[in-house]
Amino acid sequence: MTNPILVEVLRGALVESRHRGAVAVADPDGAVALAIGDVATPVFPRSAVKALQAVPLVEDGAADRFGFGDQELALACASHSGEAGHVAGVERMLACAGLDASALRCGAHWPISQAAAAALARTGAPTALHNNCSGKHAGFLCLACAMGVDTSEYFRPDHAVQRRVCAVLEDFTGAALTADRCAIDGCSVPTWAIPLENLARGFAKFGTGRGLAPERAQAAARLRQACANEPWFVAGTGRFCTDVMQRFGARVFVKTGAEGVHCGALPELGLGIALKCDDGASRAAQAIMAALIARLLPLDAAERAALSPHLAPVLRNWNGIEVGQIRVTQAI
Amino acid sequence: MTNPILVEVLRGALVESRHRGAVAVADPDGAVALAIGDVATPVFPRSAVKALQAVPLVEDGAADRFGFGDQELALACASHSGEAGHVAGVERMLACAGLDASALRCGAHWPISQAAAAALARTGAPTALHNNCSGKHAGFLCLACAMGVDTSEYFRPDHAVQRRVCAVLEDFTGAALTADRCAIDGCSVPTWAIPLENLARGFAKFGTGRGLAPERAQAAARLRQACANEPWFVAGTGRFCTDVMQRFGARVFVKTGAEGVHCGALPELGLGIALKCDDGASRAAQAIMAALIARLLPLDAAERAALSPHLAPVLRNWNGIEVGQIRVTQAI
Repeated sequence: MTNPILVEVLRGALVESRHRGAVAVADPDGAVALAIGDVATPVFPRSAVKALQAVPLVEDGAADRFGFGDQELALACASHSGEAGHVAGVERMLACAGLDASALRCGAHWPISQAAAAALARTGAPTALHNNCSGKHAGFLCLACAMGVDTSEYFRPDHAVQRRVCAVLEDFTGAALTADRCAIDGCSVPTWAIPLENLARGFAKFGTGRGLAPERAQAAARLRQACANEPWFVAGTGRFCTDVMQRFGARVFVKTGAEGVHCGALPELGLGIALKCDDGASRAAQAIMAALIARLLPLDAAERAALSPHLAPVLRNWNGIEVGQIRVTQAI
Repeated sequence: MTNPILVEVLRGALVESRHRGAVAVADPDGAVALAIGDVATPVFPRSAVKALQAVPLVEDGAADRFGFGDQELALACASHSGEAGHVAGVERMLACAGLDASALRCGAHWPISQAAAAALARTGAPTALHNNCSGKHAGFLCLACAMGVDTSEYFRPDHAVQRRVCAVLEDFTGAALTADRCAIDGCSVPTWAIPLENLARGFAKFGTGRGLAPERAQAAARLRQACANEPWFVAGTGRFCTDVMQRFGARVFVKTGAEGVHCGALPELGLGIALKCDDGASRAAQAIMAALIARLLPLDAAERAALSPHLAPVLRNWNGIEVGQIRVTQAI
């Protein structure tokens, strides 16, 4: 099955590049409200499922034990930009469990934020704290502490923490996460390939609590509210996920993943969303997610206007001259 | 016409992302030796035609007048990484014409080289000299000086420099570069959309001199030799174009362009190459170019081994763990 072209990138009046992809929108029972392209073949959700991966941290009492508020929980769900506030927040999470940055096994990379990277370069070099996944890893470490298990190998698929996370992902998505669907993520934890229709169902459950055990529904609601209250901690300055959740609060949950994945929930409609660009392009995934929100959610004029820069971003060159535009196609 | 999948990106044992694209290989007469996908629709070649854009600099005597050697000519063809040697070389080019960085109109961006960017952040911020196109712009400025025309608007489509460049591109490619095919490049100069089959023909002429007036053939040969002699100045440390030309010298000319374009020449075979990934991905464009070189050029075992990391690059995560691989498909 060839997925349709969902996004075009224009330079001047001509289409310069094209992005194909697939989209699933589903309810908590798995009924598919919208399917575009192949929604049945498993795809790696990567960081788009961090909020689901953070559920045991709340459900098992670790978040309460360590006194985590909205910022810490948002960081556990985050692909953060490595700005000073993100780094300080992750350090705080680790300190709550009596740990420090040396416990993180996510590896180091320069902050996603160019301003943060430039500031860091003046005084030092990146550590694991600056890795966009450091909040998720701090959450895994805190979960390991609360479970009373060894923390040193928390990233391995056979560690109690990852087995727990795997079971939670299976419960949300209804997909069997077998070893043949498992690969290693950028930050070394396992990532399991899951069909988009199952991911959409999982986020419908996350957004509504329907189809979940009461304590799991409660954990999901708390994480969702944390992200709605502190969206800057989920991504960072100028980032898509932060901008959208700052604007829409608890009405919209969105989370990016590497290689063109995006997941989300529209709780008032009882729907979850999962999409992937075939080629892995984030620029297209964001435009598609913005288009889906615009298509599905009842919006007033101000909300529509706030979303439009994400729907059809103008492309400018190094001199600030407008050179083109990204636009979604009629397929969405 | 739907272009075929040319590159797959694996994570573990599963294909995570896919890149479609088109390839044209042609001789100087325009006979197409290999066509994959749509090679007739115009595409923006972006920086992949910098070597053709540099031809007037040599042909009109500016390079001789300013005493340019291989490094300066390679920089005129370059998308450089903004390393110290690149910046110094561009400053030298400008100084030869009595100019400095303030004459550049390409805009500023952080060096492509992360090491150079980190070093720069310690002491300052990027200028137009660090823009990967600054060598091309310095070449345009020197051409304007040699032509005796005003230098301040050298980037505009109606300026004598760009009209001259446009005529040279038309001569190489045999395509009519009409206004409806013109858009603005990342560095503010015009970019004209050209079919891949015409671009391939243009690079066959560039690689062989066949089909060109004697002084144009001579200018092409000099630029080609400059890039073969100083490939580090065409890109930079660890970059694909540099690595390939360091290995193959004058046997292979390759040049990347934004949005997944790659052009090249194999002079001993009398062939030019032009390719574009539909989605604009450089990682795929490089793998395709490597695969075409391996397919077309007679290689010994050592040469084949040197090319293989580019043909099927291993993907490692932030901890250096192997997580996947890029591979070209049977379509190439």
